[in-house]
Amino acid sequence: MFVRNAWYCAGWDYMVTQGRNSIVARQLAGERVVLYRKPSGEIVAMEDRCPHRQAALSLGAKEGDSLRCMYHGMKFGPDGQCTEVPGQASIPARACTRVFPVVERDNWIWVWMGVAEKADVALIPFAIGPGDPAWRIKTSHMHVDANYRLEIANLADLSHLAWVHQKSLGGDDAETRHQYTHIKSKVTTGERAIRTEYLIRAVPPPNFLRHLFPAEARFDLSFDITHTLPCTWVLHFQAFVANGASEGAPTGALIADTYTCQAVVPNNADSVEYYFSWGSRADLEFPGLSDLLRDVLDIAFLEDRHVLEAQHIRMKEKPNFPMVSILHDAGPSRMLRLLDEVLAGEAGSAFRPADTEAALT
Amino acid sequence: MFVRNAWYCAGWDYMVTQGRNSIVARQLAGERVVLYRKPSGEIVAMEDRCPHRQAALSLGAKEGDSLRCMYHGMKFGPDGQCTEVPGQASIPARACTRVFPVVERDNWIWVWMGVAEKADVALIPFAIGPGDPAWRIKTSHMHVDANYRLEIANLADLSHLAWVHQKSLGGDDAETRHQYTHIKSKVTTGERAIRTEYLIRAVPPPNFLRHLFPAEARFDLSFDITHTLPCTWVLHFQAFVANGASEGAPTGALIADTYTCQAVVPNNADSVEYYFSWGSRADLEFPGLSDLLRDVLDIAFLEDRHVLEAQHIRMKEKPNFPMVSILHDAGPSRMLRLLDEVLAGEAGSAFRPADTEAALT
Amino acid sequence: MFVRNAWYCAGWDYMVTQGRNSIVARQLAGERVVLYRKPSGEIVAMEDRCPHRQAALSLGAKEGDSLRCMYHGMKFGPDGQCTEVPGQASIPARACTRVFPVVERDNWIWVWMGVAEKADVALIPFAIGPGDPAWRIKTSHMHVDANYRLEIANLADLSHLAWVHQKSLGGDDAETRHQYTHIKSKVTTGERAIRTEYLIRAVPPPNFLRHLFPAEARFDLSFDITHTLPCTWVLHFQAFVANGASEGAPTGALIADTYTCQAVVPNNADSVEYYFSWGSRADLEFPGLSDLLRDVLDIAFLEDRHVLEAQHIRMKEKPNFPMVSILHDAGPSRMLRLLDEVLAGEAGSAFRPADTEAALT
Repeated sequence: MFVRNAWYCAGWDYMVTQGRNSIVARQLAGERVVLYRKPSGEIVAMEDRCPHRQAALSLGAKEGDSLRCMYHGMKFGPDGQCTEVPGQASIPARACTRVFPVVERDNWIWVWMGVAEKADVALIPFAIGPGDPAWRIKTSHMHVDANYRLEIANLADLSHLAWVHQKSLGGDDAETRHQYTHIKSKVTTGERAIRTEYLIRAVPPPNFLRHLFPAEARFDLSFDITHTLPCTWVLHFQAFVANGASEGAPTGALIADTYTCQAVVPNNADSVEYYFSWGSRADLEFPGLSDLLRDVLDIAFLEDRHVLEAQHIRMKEKPNFPMVSILHDAGPSRMLRLLDEVLAGEAGSAFRPADTEAALT
Repeated sequence: MFVRNAWYCAGWDYMVTQGRNSIVARQLAGERVVLYRKPSGEIVAMEDRCPHRQAALSLGAKEGDSLRCMYHGMKFGPDGQCTEVPGQASIPARACTRVFPVVERDNWIWVWMGVAEKADVALIPFAIGPGDPAWRIKTSHMHVDANYRLEIANLADLSHLAWVHQKSLGGDDAETRHQYTHIKSKVTTGERAIRTEYLIRAVPPPNFLRHLFPAEARFDLSFDITHTLPCTWVLHFQAFVANGASEGAPTGALIADTYTCQAVVPNNADSVEYYFSWGSRADLEFPGLSDLLRDVLDIAFLEDRHVLEAQHIRMKEKPNFPMVSILHDAGPSRMLRLLDEVLAGEAGSAFRPADTEAALT
Repeated sequence: MFVRNAWYCAGWDYMVTQGRNSIVARQLAGERVVLYRKPSGEIVAMEDRCPHRQAALSLGAKEGDSLRCMYHGMKFGPDGQCTEVPGQASIPARACTRVFPVVERDNWIWVWMGVAEKADVALIPFAIGPGDPAWRIKTSHMHVDANYRLEIANLADLSHLAWVHQKSLGGDDAETRHQYTHIKSKVTTGERAIRTEYLIRAVPPPNFLRHLFPAEARFDLSFDITHTLPCTWVLHFQAFVANGASEGAPTGALIADTYTCQAVVPNNADSVEYYFSWGSRADLEFPGLSDLLRDVLDIAFLEDRHVLEAQHIRMKEKPNFPMVSILHDAGPSRMLRLLDEVLAGEAGSAFRPADTEAALT
């Protein structure tokens, strides 16, 4: 159900501090994980489960580089090895907790949930973080009670901006709807990622920006999306003043150059944590712009959540419901197929396309 | 578990309006149903599940006679047929959602959950609605977390007015208790309904009316109940001043002539929606009477809910608990047997009386 | 899962009064039980389930010595026998509800959940109740969402005072930690109980008392614990001024002589009710002392609850997680083994030590 040999986002770096009580519990791909920072600043990620009697290590206490379980006082080094059992001299051989490789990059915390030896930093997706001085990236977070496959499908096809997000990211006018539902994109498929590039020409601004422009304003919008397994989604979004050109790269004035970076993290089969950001290139920022971008995502992802949670309930009610496919499924199908190929590879079984169809899409 | 070829009540007509956002989600006999009105006023009932990826159509938008799924914009006519898939010219053959026959009658919305061709308006139970000018019917609604068989059993025997409703519809005095527990009724069994008629003579007024009368006031109360499958319950209730007659129809002054109409609708195996009303004949109404009748049902059905929800929990805990039968089970048994005969008929299996005993009563 | 032939605590005696509405619902070892007092003062305990249709008798009404089900008015004597079915002359032979032996002792209500003939008051554990004039015992109560085996393990090893309760019952200083994790105790195992006696010498006062003494104050603490199946835990706790003796009974001044009596009662596999008390010997009481003792247990058991509820969730997630044992498991293992021996005896099967290891510890 979950790819094991992959980096999972455990949130923004500011969520794990040097505070005495900053011992953070997460569920990542079904596993309980506890995170804390060593005095050096490095983050340690361990299974949040004492090897003694499964007490939560996230209720424990930091001691230097170590974490002490506060049920019976067993102390674990940052390598997961038990170094002290109060009241006895010897340490049982199996007294260690699983440690997961951790990397911080672009202000995201990445945890490798598979075989430690296979952890490959080259697999961490490219992103622009809030700490990058060249950009004004603003961050947020949301919990959604839906399977992560539904989030993948949602992100892999932006035609829903015309419907789900008609009041926010998209629009309810005929031009916007036509454009967003007739996108021609260039798709490049990698081993674990799909890049999708396209241009939407001469559309009105998205609804959340419409009050800032005259009614006749039209823009060329450029999308360059990289969607990486399990589910990181990075969009380089640019807006140009439309100047009537219908071919080639936009030549109008560049009025917005932005990045939005989004990580959807399955807690388990029924919910995800969603860590996302949006912001402008620093030299094109003006007061309030990047904050506005982040704010509209808070609104838009509540719109998605409403839809996905109802969909999740219905999919669980009728797992064998015969679903109908449409052209807009191309993106979701590509991405879910990539996921299923990796899952089949990890399971040592042959990938069967029908499984993607049958699974919770 | 649910009779399929039957009309299920989806609420009062005023619950589905012409408002832009009046797109109403229901669960009827286990199925998700969405209801909306066409501009003509007619109600459409569809499965609340887009044939594409099971998004909730109840989160959609009305467009003329149609309902548009607001996930990917697929539009469905009132016949359930998809008429538009934004972004593509052709409509997949299977792109339609199930439509259910709907009838409005007596201000109730009735949805046929079985084979459409078998929908027979003659099966809609008789009722008096709040819109009937000859009556002053007042309406209400309640959710109950109990299986609908428990509600059927509750409604099919009113001896519980002496106990559950001692402070409201019944009484805690010896006269009331004796009378309500020694009812002799005339029972007429139809194919899908049971009619029960009886007279309770010379009882004090029910507790909720007792403050309006002197202590010695006694009344003859006439009950004429029609209980129809799956679970509609209509009572014509009349009160006459008691004049000592112990045989024949009451001859005292008629001081109240009322109808209460009640529909219990299974959402699923664990809960029901309860749509109910009570009111006086218009020419016998006096200020506040019909409102009082409706108000006491709100109180009384909370009393029932308390009992039925605790019973539901216990029945799930011990499904094989050997239950003891008493004389007052006659009514519930008749009605549940009728239900089980229809269920067996739909399942194409022979009806076995033991099943009624064994099932969640 | 639960010992049947055992006394289970149904709470403090003051929880079941002569009030009209004092009809108390409990879940004891998985069974629904209703308790009420007869006018004579004696408590009756019945299965909280009407033999007719499983209505909750706890929603019923007291009538003299009897309890009337307020659904259809069936009346049950204190022997559980139905004595009246309103509306019919004969009583069905099987119309009786199970009655459980009840004993009040030390202000606790004890209910025997097994074969009535085997009920043996000699099995009721010794305790000091709040009504004992020689003591100033104060009472409290808490609900915990954890399996009772986790509570047994928690109570059978007090080394966790150094960790879980470092801010309350124990301490976070090196002396306290060392002492509490190097206890040498005298253990006496009975058929259904284990007695554990030990002395902790020359420790600082527990954290919740530290503000009352100078920093250099040290005490000898004497523990005499009797832990009885299913889970009653009685501690005679005494504090003496430390006078440097390192062998034999304490000879310093006795400054506190107290009893804490605790009953952990499984509702079902996933939760317990916890009835507990603490208080001083009357002649050593000073204003506020016994109230302080009760108050610190309210705080300390919230600390335990936090730990045990997280542990319970993790144990259910990974029932086959290979757990590591430490020296401090000696106490818990002894007590859980005793439990499993009695369970095996009741099941008529041979006790296998491995089962204790494998079960929810």
